[in-house]
Amino acid sequence: MAEPSQQQFPEVQGGGSLIIAWQVKGKTVLVVGGGEVAAGRILHCLNADANVTVVSPAARLNPEVAYRVAQRQVSHIDRKFETSDLEGADMVLVAVDDPAASTAIWKLCKARRIPANIADVPPECDFYFGSVHRDGPLQIMVSTNGKGPRLASIIRKFIAKHLPSNAGRAIDTVGQLRVRLREMAPRPEEGPKRMAWMMKVSDAYPWDEMCGLTDEDIGNLLRFYPSNKVPSLDTLKDMRADAEGKRGEFDGSFGFSVGS
Amino acid sequence: MAEPSQQQFPEVQGGGSLIIAWQVKGKTVLVVGGGEVAAGRILHCLNADANVTVVSPAARLNPEVAYRVAQRQVSHIDRKFETSDLEGADMVLVAVDDPAASTAIWKLCKARRIPANIADVPPECDFYFGSVHRDGPLQIMVSTNGKGPRLASIIRKFIAKHLPSNAGRAIDTVGQLRVRLREMAPRPEEGPKRMAWMMKVSDAYPWDEMCGLTDEDIGNLLRFYPSNKVPSLDTLKDMRADAEGKRGEFDGSFGFSVGS
Repeated sequence: MAEPSQQQFPEVQGGGSLIIAWQVKGKTVLVVGGGEVAAGRILHCLNADANVTVVSPAARLNPEVAYRVAQRQVSHIDRKFETSDLEGADMVLVAVDDPAASTAIWKLCKARRIPANIADVPPECDFYFGSVHRDGPLQIMVSTNGKGPRLASIIRKFIAKHLPSNAGRAIDTVGQLRVRLREMAPRPEEGPKRMAWMMKVSDAYPWDEMCGLTDEDIGNLLRFYPSNKVPSLDTLKDMRADAEGKRGEFDGSFGFSVGS
Repeated sequence: MAEPSQQQFPEVQGGGSLIIAWQVKGKTVLVVGGGEVAAGRILHCLNADANVTVVSPAARLNPEVAYRVAQRQVSHIDRKFETSDLEGADMVLVAVDDPAASTAIWKLCKARRIPANIADVPPECDFYFGSVHRDGPLQIMVSTNGKGPRLASIIRKFIAKHLPSNAGRAIDTVGQLRVRLREMAPRPEEGPKRMAWMMKVSDAYPWDEMCGLTDEDIGNLLRFYPSNKVPSLDTLKDMRADAEGKRGEFDGSFGFSVGS
């Protein structure tokens, strides 16, 4: 029925950014400056397992940055920036109140093709930061594309409030299920069957209820894989060792009801 | 009262990614491959105003990519990838079913320090994609850090459902307010007063109700800036030309009630 027109495909909505999850694990991020903005950037990088080096005179470190230096969470170069600091840097974040110095560092980074962000100078940024909600493996980033940083943070809090508590656990549960399934049925030929069953599981359970599944539940759930079935959540709960009432042995069928 | 311990500062939660809003406006993104995965990447890039070049034999383009080529939304090189395609590329996205070719392209990108993503090969990715909700200037990206791409999309839909409709409008409204305020009070010395008033506005109005403000409302709101006041939302609504009942002229005070 549909015409072979643009309606078939999503329309382009320009004006956004390309939001991506940059991998900095084990990579070196150079942070120039040690004030409040730098402190926020540093935490973002540490949460992503980066090796962070901070260049700033010790006297100018804010308490949070000084704390992370003292705890050896970051390396510290106790002086102003020098060009040689860029050696080995995979990313550079600048947050100093010195526009001329900032621009000079930006140019050095561009000559070396090092991704860089100069705080508060949008034209001197390969990327912007946003407001990030974190819950275990779950990360949700809100960007207003520079139009309202305060609103970004308000919207992030709004989202956090509406997410089911322990939303991150649902992801861990699915991740664990996938790993244990692969251990149980490791043969590559079973790949399609494994994948189809995993999709069946995601379709069968509302994601916000998966936060509540225990290790025991996952073990019980896996017993349904050989017969390519997925039990109801109630069935899984009834299978728990501490479930009330008599508990039957799993008989390969599903939808049966045990306990009260 | 608080001890000068780690409790003072947010604790590091490793295992995440550095989620950033990459700026590709006017930059060249080379997409190698023209299948379904490529189609999704291309849309992300076009939404961020990138110049996209697709390298793929025409016969292998999926209908969406073929459509974007026909509409000249993207440039097209009608053959397999060649090393010279990397010239001028600011970012490279590879989505072809050829692991050897993919790895070769990844290595070429690394030698040239071009950020790259090889679909489905996490170790050959400078960054991952996530599931993105878009509403005008608002972008919300959900990442499960590779643990559950399907769940990322489910959580994105959950968030979209819980956001107030036209959430993006709230951001546009704040953006417009800031621009018009600067036009009205352009002097640099007024910067702190402008900023303080803008913060007062964000504190006074729940963000989800700002979606409903009209151009007229913004004009009326700005009339309160000289006296550094912020009217209630009801007052603003009562000031509308089509508000019911008698409407008084603004007298510089706020909290007055007009209409019924």
